[in-house]
This record gives sequence, structure tokens and C-alpha cells, in this order.
Amino acid sequence: MGAMLEHRNQERRGLFLVVDGVDGCGKTTQAGRLAERLGVEPELHLREPGSTALGEALRALLLDRRYQIEPAVETLMFAAARRQMLDELVEPALAAGKTVVCERFHPSTFAYQAVAGSLAPEAVMGLLQDWAGAPQPDMILLLDMDVDEAAKRRGAATDRIEAKGLDFQRRVAEGYRAYAELDPRAILIDGNQTPDVVHAAILQEVQRVRS
Amino acid sequence: MGAMLEHRNQERRGLFLVVDGVDGCGKTTQAGRLAERLGVEPELHLREPGSTALGEALRALLLDRRYQIEPAVETLMFAAARRQMLDELVEPALAAGKTVVCERFHPSTFAYQAVAGSLAPEAVMGLLQDWAGAPQPDMILLLDMDVDEAAKRRGAATDRIEAKGLDFQRRVAEGYRAYAELDPRAILIDGNQTPDVVHAAILQEVQRVRS
Repeated sequence: MGAMLEHRNQERRGLFLVVDGVDGCGKTTQAGRLAERLGVEPELHLREPGSTALGEALRALLLDRRYQIEPAVETLMFAAARRQMLDELVEPALAAGKTVVCERFHPSTFAYQAVAGSLAPEAVMGLLQDWAGAPQPDMILLLDMDVDEAAKRRGAATDRIEAKGLDFQRRVAEGYRAYAELDPRAILIDGNQTPDVVHAAILQEVQRVRS
Repeated sequence: MGAMLEHRNQERRGLFLVVDGVDGCGKTTQAGRLAERLGVEPELHLREPGSTALGEALRALLLDRRYQIEPAVETLMFAAARRQMLDELVEPALAAGKTVVCERFHPSTFAYQAVAGSLAPEAVMGLLQDWAGAPQPDMILLLDMDVDEAAKRRGAATDRIEAKGLDFQRRVAEGYRAYAELDPRAILIDGNQTPDVVHAAILQEVQRVRS
């Protein structure tokens, strides 16, 4: 009886899918195509940090080049924006059986603040699990990509974090690969391929959690 | 030789003093009088959240009545503002032998978000110790006060947190008393007395850490 109820609850819950990767890897394009293909409501195609009113205000502070913000402070602000988004948007949507597609999540914090920002990875993951640990994504698609190619695609650096330069981005890319090793729900996708091929690869992976 | 150097370093380090307590308890008045008496530089009379450019921007978000912010998100934002202040202002001042007086610190987060906000106290204190744990205050002066009297003194509620009402403030006051039990550097001062008497009581306590 308990198992039946649990099964029924799982049936009704929507999917929580994350698309993540270095700046310029094609996250927005691929998350958009995935959301369209799955019939995700436009307001449930989320981006991090942001999507809530408070999260967008925190995003504006985080990207503002007038502030100097150390990785520990960044981590706390990203965690705050994430928790607000989980409580305000993701949890209610999943409970109503709706699917959510989100650009960026824990892998970004792990790659930018821990691996590239030199914070202890266990401390960062502990904070995220304790303070922004639920709901968990059903699948995390990491677009792995040549950093020089990604830099060309995204053009000139415009915000505080993009302005950290190519060496920083290289460590970020290593960070995503390291994340894929430690989270069984994370899957590396070769983002150097054409957008159509990347989209097909993502769809193939997503079929596995939908069935 | 090591011990001598350590002694000399301690000699040169300034004091980090915190004044905390419920809204309307007289924190700003007492912190100001203490700072003046100790010859603290005006820019080292700090307030939390705030005092740095980023911290003041976070403060504006936290007090804005247009946002609905749950205690977990508040805690992360307060921790972010605090860490920024510790790194940017407190640590350099103490290293230069200067004394810092700060309004609000860990006891506020413990009282408002854990005790009154119903978060697990160990989780909140763990976060603060791990992410905003240094430098530690040398002494924390907690102005304990009748909540109805404090409400009269501060007048009508103007910001998002003051608007939570008297029952919330009563739990906050209990939270400060609970904090005094668990941090040996925290001292309860009877804030119901006249400002002159409270000031004298604070000075007497501070003499103990200065000597």
C-alpha cells in the first residue's frame, strides 16, 4: 500500500532537467530546444541565478563589474538564489506534474567557485546539499566543449564572471568534467558537434529518465 | 621565539566588538557611544547586513517588502553580506591594530532565522562557522530588553522584517537569550535601563577584554 502510493506520487511528479556547461557552450539554445520538444511551459524554462524576482536581483549584483566578490561570497549568493528558485518555482511545478528545464545548477557552483575559484569542493557541495538540496534534478546534461571555441561563440566578455579570462574558463571546463565523475545523474555531452547533433544526443539521454 | 612573535601579533591586533539585540533595543546608540569612547574610526563602526557596497545592496533586498524571502534564503544572504564585510573591512582593520564595533552578527541570524524562523539551530550555526567564521568577535554584547518597550521606542514597522510583528519579536528576544547560553563570548546586558547606565555596563565589560 505504501509502495503503491509512492509509485502513484512519482507518476504525477514532473521531471526536473538541468543543462549546464561553460559560457558559450550553447546552454540557452539547447535548453530552449529541449523545453520546446517536451512542451515545457515558457515560464518553467528557468535560468540560474535568476528566474524569481529575488534571484534576478541577486544575478544583477553577481554580474555587476563594479563589485569585487570573492568565491565564498559568490557561493552563498548563488545558493540563496537557487534555494529561492527551488521553493518558489521548481517544487510547485514538479508537484503539479509539470516538467522544468533549468540552465545551470550545482555543477556551475562546483566548477566556478570550487575548482576554478579554489574553494574546497567538499565544503561547496556540503553547502549546496544542505541548503539547496531539494528537489534534486532527475538528470543533469553537461555540455562539454573546447574553451577557445566557446569563447569565439559567445563573443566579447561582458559581465564580471566572463571577464575572468580564458585560463579561468579552462579550469571551469575541468570542473564540469570532475563534476560528471561524482554525480551519477550528470551526463557529459560533446558540445563541439552541430546544434542538431547535440539536441539529438540530449533527447536520447532524456528518453532514459522519461521511460 | 614563536611564543614571543605570537604575543607581539596579538598586541598589534585590534578588538572586534559586536553589539546586538532586538529591533529598538538601542544598538545604534550604544554602538555609537562605545565607538566614540574607544576612538574607533567612523568607517569602522559597522552595521549588518551592510557597510560594504555589496552588503548594502544585499541589505536593500533583504528589507524590501516586495520580496517574500524564506528563512533559509535570508540566512544565506546574511552570511554572504557578513563574509564580504569580514574579508573587506574587519580582517584588514584588525590586522592594522584598529578596533571595530559592529551592530548585529551571528546572534541576529541565530535569533531571527533559527529560533524565530524555525530553522535547525545547529544547521544555522554550522553555516555561519564554516562560511563566516573568521575573524571571530572578541566580545558580543547582547542588549536584552522588554519587547513591548522596544517596539514603542522604534515606532511603526517600516521594513520587511520589522513587519513580522510582536510575537515574532518575542521569539527573537528568546533567541538572543538562548545564544548567550551557547557562546562564551556573548554577554547579556539589561537594555531596559537608561542609556547612560547601559553604556556604563558595556564599558565595564569591554574593559575585561582590553586588559
